[in-house]
Amino acid sequence: MSRGQGKLIGVGVGPGDPELMTLKAVRVLGEAEVVAHFAKAGHASVSRATAARHLRAGVAELPLLYPVTTELPKCSAGYRTAIGAFYDQAAADIAAELEAGRTVAVICEGDPLFYGSYMHLHARLARRFPTEIVAGVTGMSGCWSAARMPIAQGDDVFTVIPATLPEDQLARRLADTNAAVVMKVGRHLPKLRRALQCSGRLDRAVYVERGSMADAVLTPLAAMPDDRAPYFAVVLVPGWEGRP
Amino acid sequence: MSRGQGKLIGVGVGPGDPELMTLKAVRVLGEAEVVAHFAKAGHASVSRATAARHLRAGVAELPLLYPVTTELPKCSAGYRTAIGAFYDQAAADIAAELEAGRTVAVICEGDPLFYGSYMHLHARLARRFPTEIVAGVTGMSGCWSAARMPIAQGDDVFTVIPATLPEDQLARRLADTNAAVVMKVGRHLPKLRRALQCSGRLDRAVYVERGSMADAVLTPLAAMPDDRAPYFAVVLVPGWEGRP
Repeated sequence: MSRGQGKLIGVGVGPGDPELMTLKAVRVLGEAEVVAHFAKAGHASVSRATAARHLRAGVAELPLLYPVTTELPKCSAGYRTAIGAFYDQAAADIAAELEAGRTVAVICEGDPLFYGSYMHLHARLARRFPTEIVAGVTGMSGCWSAARMPIAQGDDVFTVIPATLPEDQLARRLADTNAAVVMKVGRHLPKLRRALQCSGRLDRAVYVERGSMADAVLTPLAAMPDDRAPYFAVVLVPGWEGRP
Repeated sequence: MSRGQGKLIGVGVGPGDPELMTLKAVRVLGEAEVVAHFAKAGHASVSRATAARHLRAGVAELPLLYPVTTELPKCSAGYRTAIGAFYDQAAADIAAELEAGRTVAVICEGDPLFYGSYMHLHARLARRFPTEIVAGVTGMSGCWSAARMPIAQGDDVFTVIPATLPEDQLARRLADTNAAVVMKVGRHLPKLRRALQCSGRLDRAVYVERGSMADAVLTPLAAMPDDRAPYFAVVLVPGWEGRP
């Protein structure tokens, strides 16, 4: 007897603090027949660690392990081919579960459709299978909440800017918005610091590492003695200039 | 005996679906001695309705009722004076509870520090009292999740734009970003439609009303037969042009 197709569910688990999971994420993970999660090969999955206490004992797990591509530049054709083949295979593995009638929950850091790896599966599977999204608290919300920093208000324009952009574009975009979150800081911090200086925003900028975790780092960027930062660090530039 | 000062906690309750509250929001609301919430005079509080099942029976509630200002343009000095006096009084009422040693949880739609009314209290009280923020799922996450629309990926620039901006600024900003959420659509929809057309984004735009609710409206904007929209409607313009 056919059970029909299973459903693909992208489940946001929030910025890292397990208490910032939603009630819906907890329920859906408790009901799912298969739980899939991304991780770097050789590393524990961050999203799985966040959600661990809410997985059913003995639930089927499907780890999706990124290929090791450290030798390839991210803009190279070789990297794109390797990562595209990885997502194709991950989608095929999930499709096999869905075809067998099983519900597959893919746990995602932050929100599934906001810069998340889940999107690569969604784009490959959403036309073939029923899907559902469980919205999550984004990593950036976790950061400005930890910093207790009002980020945008009223008619502010708010912009999320990847630090990978060229310096002149960073400076132009920082000058052209009321509030900003700069992501993927890592090795781009010296360039970002110059762009913030050039756009007159350095004095407002706050550097955040692991915002929702017990060992969070929160400091005015202007007071940071060096430019060493991990890839996932963010820089917040608050808007709401007219605050009381 | 002095109990010391109470703590002010901004508690995000998410985009409207009670299941999108976080575990932390539920815990904090169950522990708070006073629960405050904003509402328009004569209307039920939306955030309170979302959180209702998690309030302790008999907990002290502090409704913060916006003054009726419908006769005043929002840009007028009269409006600003009335709304400023309202936030001053609300902050004073909360300060009295905090001085008495009570913990006050202010429940907030979406995320407390992202375009939220709580910020007006935070700005007035955070220098005098201990504060904590419980991050929430934003209204916009609720909207793109309901639409199952991947909104931004990779090195996309993502911009939140208020529809209140002049048409030329709307068009310029829509053309200058990979992904956008336009807020406060309401009576600005005819102007926004022209700006989307001018920036070549109309065909990608999706109109969303009450995204996280059972009676959500989700439709390609180009297919909408008229330009009637409530204030809280949003328009989503997805990025990730290179999706597979």
